[in-house]
Amino acid sequence: MNIVISGSGLVGSLLSIYLAKRGHKVDIYERRPDMRKAKISAGKSINLALSDRGWKGLEGVGIADEIRKIAIPMYGRFIHHKDGSTAYQAYGKKEQAIYSVSRGAINMKLMDLAEQQPNISMHFNERCDYVDKNTGTIKFINTETNNVTTLNPDLVFGADGAFSAVRLNMQLQNDRFDYHQFYIEASYKELSIPPGENGSFLIKKNALHIWPRGSFMMIALPNFDGSFTCTLFLTHEGAEKSFEHLKTKEDVLKFFNEEFPDAVPLMPTLVEDFFTNPTSSLVTVKCYPWVFNDKIALIGDAAHAIVPFYGQGMNCGFEDCVVLNSLIEKHKEDWPKILQEYQVLRKPDGDAIADLAIMNFVEMRDKTADAKFLLQKKIEARFSEKYPDKWIPLYSMVTYSPHIRYSTALKEGLRQEAIMQEIMALPNIEHIWDSEEVEKMILEKI
Amino acid sequence: MNIVISGSGLVGSLLSIYLAKRGHKVDIYERRPDMRKAKISAGKSINLALSDRGWKGLEGVGIADEIRKIAIPMYGRFIHHKDGSTAYQAYGKKEQAIYSVSRGAINMKLMDLAEQQPNISMHFNERCDYVDKNTGTIKFINTETNNVTTLNPDLVFGADGAFSAVRLNMQLQNDRFDYHQFYIEASYKELSIPPGENGSFLIKKNALHIWPRGSFMMIALPNFDGSFTCTLFLTHEGAEKSFEHLKTKEDVLKFFNEEFPDAVPLMPTLVEDFFTNPTSSLVTVKCYPWVFNDKIALIGDAAHAIVPFYGQGMNCGFEDCVVLNSLIEKHKEDWPKILQEYQVLRKPDGDAIADLAIMNFVEMRDKTADAKFLLQKKIEARFSEKYPDKWIPLYSMVTYSPHIRYSTALKEGLRQEAIMQEIMALPNIEHIWDSEEVEKMILEKI
Repeated sequence: MNIVISGSGLVGSLLSIYLAKRGHKVDIYERRPDMRKAKISAGKSINLALSDRGWKGLEGVGIADEIRKIAIPMYGRFIHHKDGSTAYQAYGKKEQAIYSVSRGAINMKLMDLAEQQPNISMHFNERCDYVDKNTGTIKFINTETNNVTTLNPDLVFGADGAFSAVRLNMQLQNDRFDYHQFYIEASYKELSIPPGENGSFLIKKNALHIWPRGSFMMIALPNFDGSFTCTLFLTHEGAEKSFEHLKTKEDVLKFFNEEFPDAVPLMPTLVEDFFTNPTSSLVTVKCYPWVFNDKIALIGDAAHAIVPFYGQGMNCGFEDCVVLNSLIEKHKEDWPKILQEYQVLRKPDGDAIADLAIMNFVEMRDKTADAKFLLQKKIEARFSEKYPDKWIPLYSMVTYSPHIRYSTALKEGLRQEAIMQEIMALPNIEHIWDSEEVEKMILEKI
Repeated sequence: MNIVISGSGLVGSLLSIYLAKRGHKVDIYERRPDMRKAKISAGKSINLALSDRGWKGLEGVGIADEIRKIAIPMYGRFIHHKDGSTAYQAYGKKEQAIYSVSRGAINMKLMDLAEQQPNISMHFNERCDYVDKNTGTIKFINTETNNVTTLNPDLVFGADGAFSAVRLNMQLQNDRFDYHQFYIEASYKELSIPPGENGSFLIKKNALHIWPRGSFMMIALPNFDGSFTCTLFLTHEGAEKSFEHLKTKEDVLKFFNEEFPDAVPLMPTLVEDFFTNPTSSLVTVKCYPWVFNDKIALIGDAAHAIVPFYGQGMNCGFEDCVVLNSLIEKHKEDWPKILQEYQVLRKPDGDAIADLAIMNFVEMRDKTADAKFLLQKKIEARFSEKYPDKWIPLYSMVTYSPHIRYSTALKEGLRQEAIMQEIMALPNIEHIWDSEEVEKMILEKI
């Protein structure tokens, strides 16, 4: 088949390899210039956390080892309290980690690997102008030459991100298209901790750093050169502590000195970065259908854009490719069946990870600094270690358990949380948390 | 000020009169031809129910009497059961009615009344192609000549309906625009009961007729010529009884003879109408903000498209004009203040009537045939008559009480429903419904 993919981002590039390996001819059209030649555009988060669902997606086409070379494992959360004290919370069992990768590096690697396939061609500076819902005819306009390319492929994938042009065309043409985009109150801004001498890491390398401050937070992820990419998540406007009220150099320094006193000495370009880098919004997109007339399908952020707090955006998109690939095998290239099952099967999981991602913002910014919450996690970890068949913590289900669907993880997670609310309400739980009594109670409630 | 309104529909036309009466120069641009000269396009519901919020909107510019001439009062619901039996349920107190008006007739009347204002100009066949979020610059393309008109008014109103072009431009340009469009399972199709001899009415004239059938229903509203406009609301697809399964003449006749046996003899053009008239979807749209850069505002369906089951779409849009007008007075033409308060004040009411409208589908199609529900309504009516200060039934709050906000009505309605659930759960309620005991219980719970 001739397949057109709109978007050469993470999901579009990986998807192309899956399809090409099955013998399809794939053309990728990308609105932006080739990022391997041009400078990557700012404004998008430049660090991502790759975890097991993502690895599985890469392994499916044999490129995980290539990516492992550019990934730094993070084995836990490193918490920076306001008073300067710190704490470390492991993410799971000893060997379990999530991996810091640079968005640019992994995307360029995926593009290189895609172009090594003889039946993949990539076209840059091509803006998707129109997709016909019925025929799949797709029109691109070259942003440099204004040349128009009109294609009639057998199949179109919209892998063109949270503000997908393919999806917009479906919104405008398709009767009965459910569409929901909404923003959370927080926006984000990228900042930086440069490397120490000789590329040393000035804070713990193999961890995801969090400065949880209740209604807002800063995080930092390690890069290979010893630097950390920091991200401040803060209310956009309205609140006393919000981007709206950080207007001058003095505002910024006062805020950071008050809230992140241990980080400020490590951030020599703080003020410059703050006013140079954009303040970006955090959108969630839910829509349905994802498939139109057996000709057009949405995938990745185009189908389900989520906020970044579970570190699952890329992982979820890669898992879309895994699911699609397994359905191609199951239905032996019967594409109407493949696409129909793809959207029915995958939609609840897209919805679930969107909800989980929003829920995890509260956990990261607020609860990681809360003693009671930490005790709860300790009880869960203890119980899970003893009864691994009966209890997998929610974070582990989402992050390390690709065999568990996001929708199942969410359902289970809510059930676990209800049980733990009862346990945590026990008088004296601080002292009896590791008692046989508590263990029995959990066993009964499961 | 120079004001451009996109859309000469019901809300755009009425809004223009409000603004012109305050001395503003108003230009209305309408995508379609002048409906007073061309035939009105099919597919949109051609009967509407005008009620007190709508009347208040018309009275505000002194045109209610003109419209009253083309409106037929409906004092209650006339229920047609499957077995051929019928029942009448008054809508409220004796004089309380909703009014059947033809969409075309009232729209044309409003356009005539608008054009009588010297400072209103109307332009037809003008498709809104672009609105600049920051400057309010708006571009129209004439659909017959392809001439482009670019305007820089002081203020733009998007009154261009559920699929508003102005709103779409805001969706595409505005960071942090929350947008939600979703469809209910039911679609609708317009059908007809022609007049009897000499323009007589073949079923009760002054009523809204309902054939409630659980998961679907048909309704009929009277027209001046003795005819009734019928609307079938039925699941779009998937269910056994759905439009999907009404493919042949035989399917349609079988379905109607089974479900609406008393109506079929009155519908000689049933089969023809069924296959000529479109099957239309029912969308709800919620979005925010409604105001952009003090330059552009959404109003009516463009801000809050709702399903038709509360008969409030037009009434709500007219009430938008009333609210806006009162804010113009309050803030003495200080438009940034007017627009800001307009959206903050009105958004919860738009959300509330959207939710109420969906809830009322269930009531109309299902509960109006349910003895227990009718008993509940009887208890409420009795109590409300005795204690009018303590209890206004939800339908009356929404329909006859423009001084009560939709959002308040919804909140009160949910509270009432919770009380009535307890009352209806009393053993033997069928026999004690008008007892002092029940009355006292309600008094205690309020």
